Amino acid sequence: MILASTNETVEAGNGFNHKDIISVSQFNTKNLDYIFHRACEMRDVVEQDGCSDLLKGKVLACLFYEPSTRTSASFIAAMDRLGGRVIPITQGVQFSSVSKGESLADTIRTLEQYADVIVLRHPEIGSAQLAADYADVPVINAGDGAGEHPTQALLDLFTIYEELGTLENLKISMVGDLRNGRTVHSLTKLLTLYKVNLRFVSPEILRMPLTIMNEVIDAGINVRETHDVADVIKNADVLYVTRVQKERFTDLSQYEEVKGHYEITPEIMSQAKEKMIIMHPLPRVGEIHDSVDSDPRAAYFRQVKNGMYIRMALLAAVLGK
Amino acid sequence: MILASTNETVEAGNGFNHKDIISVSQFNTKNLDYIFHRACEMRDVVEQDGCSDLLKGKVLACLFYEPSTRTSASFIAAMDRLGGRVIPITQGVQFSSVSKGESLADTIRTLEQYADVIVLRHPEIGSAQLAADYADVPVINAGDGAGEHPTQALLDLFTIYEELGTLENLKISMVGDLRNGRTVHSLTKLLTLYKVNLRFVSPEILRMPLTIMNEVIDAGINVRETHDVADVIKNADVLYVTRVQKERFTDLSQYEEVKGHYEITPEIMSQAKEKMIIMHPLPRVGEIHDSVDSDPRAAYFRQVKNGMYIRMALLAAVLGK
Amino acid sequence: MILASTNETVEAGNGFNHKDIISVSQFNTKNLDYIFHRACEMRDVVEQDGCSDLLKGKVLACLFYEPSTRTSASFIAAMDRLGGRVIPITQGVQFSSVSKGESLADTIRTLEQYADVIVLRHPEIGSAQLAADYADVPVINAGDGAGEHPTQALLDLFTIYEELGTLENLKISMVGDLRNGRTVHSLTKLLTLYKVNLRFVSPEILRMPLTIMNEVIDAGINVRETHDVADVIKNADVLYVTRVQKERFTDLSQYEEVKGHYEITPEIMSQAKEKMIIMHPLPRVGEIHDSVDSDPRAAYFRQVKNGMYIRMALLAAVLGK
Repeated sequence: MILASTNETVEAGNGFNHKDIISVSQFNTKNLDYIFHRACEMRDVVEQDGCSDLLKGKVLACLFYEPSTRTSASFIAAMDRLGGRVIPITQGVQFSSVSKGESLADTIRTLEQYADVIVLRHPEIGSAQLAADYADVPVINAGDGAGEHPTQALLDLFTIYEELGTLENLKISMVGDLRNGRTVHSLTKLLTLYKVNLRFVSPEILRMPLTIMNEVIDAGINVRETHDVADVIKNADVLYVTRVQKERFTDLSQYEEVKGHYEITPEIMSQAKEKMIIMHPLPRVGEIHDSVDSDPRAAYFRQVKNGMYIRMALLAAVLGK
Repeated sequence: MILASTNETVEAGNGFNHKDIISVSQFNTKNLDYIFHRACEMRDVVEQDGCSDLLKGKVLACLFYEPSTRTSASFIAAMDRLGGRVIPITQGVQFSSVSKGESLADTIRTLEQYADVIVLRHPEIGSAQLAADYADVPVINAGDGAGEHPTQALLDLFTIYEELGTLENLKISMVGDLRNGRTVHSLTKLLTLYKVNLRFVSPEILRMPLTIMNEVIDAGINVRETHDVADVIKNADVLYVTRVQKERFTDLSQYEEVKGHYEITPEIMSQAKEKMIIMHPLPRVGEIHDSVDSDPRAAYFRQVKNGMYIRMALLAAVLGK
Repeated sequence: MILASTNETVEAGNGFNHKDIISVSQFNTKNLDYIFHRACEMRDVVEQDGCSDLLKGKVLACLFYEPSTRTSASFIAAMDRLGGRVIPITQGVQFSSVSKGESLADTIRTLEQYADVIVLRHPEIGSAQLAADYADVPVINAGDGAGEHPTQALLDLFTIYEELGTLENLKISMVGDLRNGRTVHSLTKLLTLYKVNLRFVSPEILRMPLTIMNEVIDAGINVRETHDVADVIKNADVLYVTRVQKERFTDLSQYEEVKGHYEITPEIMSQAKEKMIIMHPLPRVGEIHDSVDSDPRAAYFRQVKNGMYIRMALLAAVLGK
């Protein structure tokens, strides 16, 4: 399969029929519009009827080399709600064919005999592209190690659009570990397609990598870096929070010193605008206090639901429906 | 979600719409009547057509923090036969989000974005109630450690009703480890709602706990304790057998001495009434001899099937169908 | 359940209604014709509509005591594409009821309360027959240790028929570890039903067992053994390749000496006929070079797909559809 090229004209709708979804670089504002439009349709279907028969007769092989309850459950629910069926290979795959030494290429070419589409999670960067190179059926990347997790970036972007009604002229702050966070990198790339204002809030050792910074700057985006969420909270339309892991620090006293600057509490939220949202890719371990959950601006569980709608839209798109 | 209160009037049928199923204390004779009536309907559906479309469009998240093939398979089959779909998270969940330190509350609030109902098995007492407190969708307790396993108690009671045609004026003997058996505790609580005669047969160190005994006595139930199944076999309408585990005895000679008093053999069965039933929550490890399996009074596999009907009835009820 | 006896007349079609599928010895040319005819129908259904509703309302319990992604995924896809439902018990079953000491007989009698058909993979020889003896619902053997794996043999035979249009007068060479290969033993047994010409190519220590050789000879089959694939490549209509495992050799220098005689390379293939096929039960670990994959004679992935069609045919047959 060939990637849907970024500058491909997405005429008359679906440019994803029989395409793979490997990277956020496949998306431009036109095909994002299309996917978001479809995701909204999916939301209506779920809210009104629970499910549709759009993908009746289609089978999804959900192949996870590392467990991820959230992501696999989201794809399974998406396929279920479209009337399709799922082969769940979400646990212990390492004990099976793979342990007998089978290559990923052979496993993929086996599963595509049974399934119409393959969702792949694999710990190695580039594995999704390799799978797509071998498969005749569409492959959707559900995370390839330090590589990409494009459906997460799409659901993040869709959530901003859904919650705030636009993707233009927003002040978006990303908070936490910006160095290692696959999700913030991918979302940032997508955001360079729009006229946004970016603020990156992180400890010194966890700053956004050079390459991403340069992409942002080259795109002409208004961008600033800072060390404290207090610097951005007043103006933020979106606060995208990720975890600052203790393990990243060699000097723990340094961690103790800075960690308070990245925790979202009701006190911090009292300084935020009335119309703004807090997002998080989840799971969280304390970086957003439980007492914030009841704040209507806490969008992280609605964000999870949007993940199902986005994945429904993508499954329908790559299967040409 | 709020529990269906015990003394709530169950007017005009289903009092379980959008309610959680956490404890046997939620049930009274009226709503038991309702659930059993629905379970009979479900049996007819399965026997005639195999399945129905009653829950088409509904998704069940089946979240098992400890594996239990019997219980998870029962819920999955129940949802399948009602035309609904299942997200099976029945193995290795400890290796996933949970291992990243996510709280049960967050996992539940994530899954309810995808699913219309959650079935939870968790090793900690109180976990099902905690899940229900956080979830907007109904939660069904499939066992919370030393706590409750209400759907087992319901299927047990339903089996007595189905096999003997009534729940009144029965002589019911519980045999084995009555101290640690979650199932006998819950079933006993339900039985106090009816005019039954209870016999508890156990080794001295595995007698029914004080609290349960007092509940039984307070309910005005005719009850006796004994050390030998031979004392109850002649009059029993129901013999509910559980395992006496060797591990419970510090003095193994004591175990060897008593174990014969709790084994169900064809010889013991020859003293039983013609119309009576033997039940067991399964799995068994020798406490009912294989040669008893062909006895028509051996009801334990029919009991398993009733589990599917009861779970179909409960799923339909909490989803308002 | 009783086995469909080999010499049973398969009048008017399906002789498998409510029968178990345990061994290749249940099959004769008549019922093979029937199954292959149904498998072709299934292929048409999948190619035209993706799925049918033939098994709507039926539930398959897929019980794998050892993981096998390929086989379990094939059965799950088969049931999905026939509109049935699946209870997937494909991982970690050893940690569940079984670890509590439950017998296979009890597990089977439990699952048949929920399901209309059981597919069993178990490490012990004879386990599938034992399961079938206890079950009232049909049991399909998906591999019982060193015993049989009949659905693999059927899909192998069906692949030869599909690819070459006949099962008569073919020159079939089996290559590799013929001593320990369950699949080559079962396929050989089926092939004795037809007028074929067999060549067995293996290292001395991995020759076809005596019992199979005698069966072949007794059936009047033209058969020869050899040590080098070069001896058979020119005339072969079918080259069925299996792996020669290093571990089988106590003297590794012996392994190094012979291994080249069992590797399929483009050079070897250049000597083969234009109309012939290479098969492999998969997974492979180097015994067929990747560069052979693009050869139109490489049939091993099409063979995988045929596995789904055969399993669809078998599921429909044993469920009387």
